[in-house]
Amino acid sequence: MAELVHISDAADPRLADYVGLTDGQLRKSLESEQGLFIAEGAKVIRRAVETGHPARSLMMTEKWLPSLADLLATLDCPVYLVSDAVAESLTGFAVHRGALASMSRLPLPTLPTSLTPTTTPAPHRILILEDLTNHTNVDVPEQPTSEPKRILILEDLTNHTNVGAIFRCAAALGVDLIVLSPRCADPLYRRSVKVSMGAVFAVPYVRMTDWHNDLSVIRGAGFRLLALTPDQDAVPFDKAEMGEKVALMLGSEGDGLSSHWIKEADEAVTIPMSASAMALGVDSLNVVAATAIACHSLVTR
Amino acid sequence: MAELVHISDAADPRLADYVGLTDGQLRKSLESEQGLFIAEGAKVIRRAVETGHPARSLMMTEKWLPSLADLLATLDCPVYLVSDAVAESLTGFAVHRGALASMSRLPLPTLPTSLTPTTTPAPHRILILEDLTNHTNVDVPEQPTSEPKRILILEDLTNHTNVGAIFRCAAALGVDLIVLSPRCADPLYRRSVKVSMGAVFAVPYVRMTDWHNDLSVIRGAGFRLLALTPDQDAVPFDKAEMGEKVALMLGSEGDGLSSHWIKEADEAVTIPMSASAMALGVDSLNVVAATAIACHSLVTR
Repeated sequence: MAELVHISDAADPRLADYVGLTDGQLRKSLESEQGLFIAEGAKVIRRAVETGHPARSLMMTEKWLPSLADLLATLDCPVYLVSDAVAESLTGFAVHRGALASMSRLPLPTLPTSLTPTTTPAPHRILILEDLTNHTNVDVPEQPTSEPKRILILEDLTNHTNVGAIFRCAAALGVDLIVLSPRCADPLYRRSVKVSMGAVFAVPYVRMTDWHNDLSVIRGAGFRLLALTPDQDAVPFDKAEMGEKVALMLGSEGDGLSSHWIKEADEAVTIPMSASAMALGVDSLNVVAATAIACHSLVTR
Repeated sequence: MAELVHISDAADPRLADYVGLTDGQLRKSLESEQGLFIAEGAKVIRRAVETGHPARSLMMTEKWLPSLADLLATLDCPVYLVSDAVAESLTGFAVHRGALASMSRLPLPTLPTSLTPTTTPAPHRILILEDLTNHTNVDVPEQPTSEPKRILILEDLTNHTNVGAIFRCAAALGVDLIVLSPRCADPLYRRSVKVSMGAVFAVPYVRMTDWHNDLSVIRGAGFRLLALTPDQDAVPFDKAEMGEKVALMLGSEGDGLSSHWIKEADEAVTIPMSASAMALGVDSLNVVAATAIACHSLVTR
């Protein structure tokens, strides 16, 4: 049972996990040093807990307690009860969406591990079971036992909103794994988590350590590498040669994929634009729309 | 040649078109009464002019003049030059994106007219030619001469960002026409125009006058009506029966299509969600991602 603790001073060190939530740079260093992330709102907090992330603490105004009573009964962490004024002065914004939770990050698997067949639960799921042995009412989702066959590789997507939206697409359509380039935005940053509707907890992901060479690790694991490009001379995606294992590489909306990655791809593919759009100079699809179409083709072929 | 006019008073009545740009209610009545809309930034202003919308005036700080010199040479309207402070106090926000333009709206065709074959330029294009007879250097895009065959019908999408994003998708993928329900957000509202990247000028659209009965007008013109729903018991979109003319009905992300419209549809279709997404309770795709996938299926089948 979570312990309720009233705190009236925004400078109380027990609230340190929640400081400066609107300050991206501060949060980036704080969260990586402490190995935490922030979940916002009852729905997202529940998903984070259900997927095995240990809660360090929750923070909310008293009025939100009833709506989280069942969840709090399963947790052992402190619940800090504060006033609206303390919450706002601490976090930097008016917290309207109810509870915030500070959750522990789980260690990510390495790239080679994430690509190999698993007959036991995937590595990051083992932790779920270890952490939750005394929470029999937590609904641990069924573990994947097969190897990933349809994956996304994101190169340098630095926009948290786009990363969150891509996770939401990938989860809905059934992508098996997302590989992030070293400079991609953090899927567990508050904004990404929120936009993803919690899908960042549903799709396994892993971060490359070597931008220059890690594509060859993925190819070595049997994946055909497709580079998605707005270049209309590339092969239409619906006609691209697929295979048992396909990795689709996506770049950012402005810059697209680097020339190094395009050169490393087995094939460049595109979503054909209408002739009238080209004539009128209408820009290509935004990255989320393009990802949605590409993921749908990826998983249905 | 546009006439340059320095104005130092935000209350000058010549600036009335630009008042309160962050006040949605005020803008809605002002823009419909005056038959105007606001285009923001050089790229969007150029597209609005190129697609035949007469400029009432432009407003900017002096530093933006050089980047628009070629365009201004083709226009006859006044260009109001103001300070940053006047621009901000007038519009309600710090105008960083350069020029604003107040443009005249073009009359929309009626629903029945928009659905019929056109061997001459479409009705809203005739006005382009009438208005621009003395602008020989304006590049009027080639007119559609065939009838619309793949159309979207939006029911009560009140979010300007979503409406803009849907127009961008529709333009990129080649949808022929967008039909808006009476309560849909205005595609020419500043936010919609911006998110669409100017695609609101590229895809013809029309507004229903009768929410209850206008679907029958569309069916009467030979369209098969497909209702897109997250309901996983509906027919997967890729397997739906198409036809020569197909109208895809989209509802808002929260409420979806009304039961009246679903009942009026010839078939309810869905984008299949992955089994793991369903097990984890991951929400359906957002409306833009769903629209992107649906439009792609719509135009490629």
